[in-house]
Amino acid sequence: MIGKATVADNAAEGPADREREERAAPKSVTIAYIAESAGVSVPTVSKVLNGKSGVSADTRARVEELINRYGYRKPAGSNRSNVVELVFRELKDMWAVEIIRGVERVARQHRLGVMVSEFGLHDSKAPAWEDTVSRRPNCVLSVAQLSEAEREQLTAKGIPFVVFDPIVELPDDVPYVGATNWSGGRTATRHLTELGHRRIAMISGPEGQLCCAARLDGYRSALAAAGLAVDPGIIVHAGLTREDGAAAARALLALPDRPTAVFAANDLQALGVYQAAREAGLRIPEDLSVVGFDDLPVVAWVDPPLTTVHQPLTEMAVAATELALTLGRGEEAPQVGLEIATTLTVRASTAPPKGH
Amino acid sequence: MIGKATVADNAAEGPADREREERAAPKSVTIAYIAESAGVSVPTVSKVLNGKSGVSADTRARVEELINRYGYRKPAGSNRSNVVELVFRELKDMWAVEIIRGVERVARQHRLGVMVSEFGLHDSKAPAWEDTVSRRPNCVLSVAQLSEAEREQLTAKGIPFVVFDPIVELPDDVPYVGATNWSGGRTATRHLTELGHRRIAMISGPEGQLCCAARLDGYRSALAAAGLAVDPGIIVHAGLTREDGAAAARALLALPDRPTAVFAANDLQALGVYQAAREAGLRIPEDLSVVGFDDLPVVAWVDPPLTTVHQPLTEMAVAATELALTLGRGEEAPQVGLEIATTLTVRASTAPPKGH
Repeated sequence: MIGKATVADNAAEGPADREREERAAPKSVTIAYIAESAGVSVPTVSKVLNGKSGVSADTRARVEELINRYGYRKPAGSNRSNVVELVFRELKDMWAVEIIRGVERVARQHRLGVMVSEFGLHDSKAPAWEDTVSRRPNCVLSVAQLSEAEREQLTAKGIPFVVFDPIVELPDDVPYVGATNWSGGRTATRHLTELGHRRIAMISGPEGQLCCAARLDGYRSALAAAGLAVDPGIIVHAGLTREDGAAAARALLALPDRPTAVFAANDLQALGVYQAAREAGLRIPEDLSVVGFDDLPVVAWVDPPLTTVHQPLTEMAVAATELALTLGRGEEAPQVGLEIATTLTVRASTAPPKGH
Repeated sequence: MIGKATVADNAAEGPADREREERAAPKSVTIAYIAESAGVSVPTVSKVLNGKSGVSADTRARVEELINRYGYRKPAGSNRSNVVELVFRELKDMWAVEIIRGVERVARQHRLGVMVSEFGLHDSKAPAWEDTVSRRPNCVLSVAQLSEAEREQLTAKGIPFVVFDPIVELPDDVPYVGATNWSGGRTATRHLTELGHRRIAMISGPEGQLCCAARLDGYRSALAAAGLAVDPGIIVHAGLTREDGAAAARALLALPDRPTAVFAANDLQALGVYQAAREAGLRIPEDLSVVGFDDLPVVAWVDPPLTTVHQPLTEMAVAATELALTLGRGEEAPQVGLEIATTLTVRASTAPPKGH
């Protein structure tokens, strides 16, 4: 009510003032200025920014309109702790350490701590996500997907975030860092066509996973570039585990016209292909070439060492952290999303097909 | 100087009061009571507790004496953030994720966040350790060793800590959680003697590493129990990497009377033994049995899958976190150090020696 009164008073000042402010320095718009423009108190604007109750729908709408019009963003550090929150769906991936290491190194340079949490396990009663948000971190790096509601919660609280290696399509304005999955899939497959393979199977990931769809399209693109037809009979979708890879490979290797090479969507699947090949009495690479994706430390140690697409996890983590910190300072990021280049690491699991 | 004056005044109150307080409730001793007893101001006691300057040597000694006499401990949560600090020397070990996961799960139940940092890399200019301490965590879990100075710094600030899997001997009062390394080494070696091996080599870790010394003694103990002599000629000390393991194994396999089995101090070394065996044209387990230590996820996937001593890292991390939180609440811990039992995981890298 006080607010309404003030708005009426201020209405006389009108658009000219606002325009001056907008032109002068959009970044210097303060909560006080928004409160004045909306004719409400500063705590009311704060409630709207923090998604708290106790504000009428009308007032909330008016304040939000002004926040959007001025592109208001909480200034860096306001209310936010010296913490980078790194959230995982599940802390089990072997590459989690490489991500943590990249984030930790950049954070340390900025004297920020790295808080690691796992919030994808919904069997837990402890509300990890709520705690993450309530700690008001400097920024959030999410290796798990963030739901729209979670993203809105962060935005409302002025906490910048970056999605790491998104597995589903995100709206255009969601900052992310990934790897060049399409290029990686294309390079892996081209390596096999260049060795002379003509019948190359692909074990792709679960349908709907963005990174796997890109790797599969890269595979298709390389086959087309080599003048080879895509045979849907030797493209299998499977989970991203060793067991799923082994099951998929058993089916492929049992085909009458079995493939001479398999490109797996990740290294664990590729290790499953190793197992299926051993069971079938096939030697790698003499009878079957195998290419993976990720370059986990382990794949250099298996026999034969695996040819695979190197995913630059530490570099991706560094880039994601720098992007999040840039957003956290309220600065314009040079780009909202980026993909870091993969490279092919050729080891001993690939060779020309027999009789080639 | 104000302190000295007050001490003279208070001296008259004498020991009777102190005794009453001691008998009544030792845990309820406050900074104010210590200040009063010492005849100094509360900020002076606080300076002593926090290891800060600006206190004369006399006063410091007197305050410290009272702190010790009353067993004063900062109450839980005083001044400390809702953070468990988990510090690594270097975030590269493949088992770091298992440790982080165990710590995170316990911390989450207590609504605490887990801050992960790497502070063993001395090439960095950023003082990670100073930041860790200055964040005043609820407790510190150190996978890296802590120097005496670092431990004293934490004690002075009332921050409880637990050393995870200590590699050097610690004073009796330093809380730690480790694995039963001696028993693990004994079980691994007994498995080999029971298979009929008589010439069992050991690749141990660097001399002076406590866990490796225990594993080596467990090996010696099992040999003695089987009535076998220890041959120092087939005990090699090597770094805990795959490369070091391979180099050590090359030397062992080149001996005129080469061993029929090798027990390696960790899984990476064991993978190095695999490599050396391949180079020498020896089959595992037909020509050479191999046992590792750790049970990294990868060793189930190599060919042949490795027989190894399972180190219960997640359970160790859970126990270490619970111990640290108990200490953090100012409660007596049931024990200051504990070792979690290892178990032998028998896979396909061990078999009776040829002709047995």
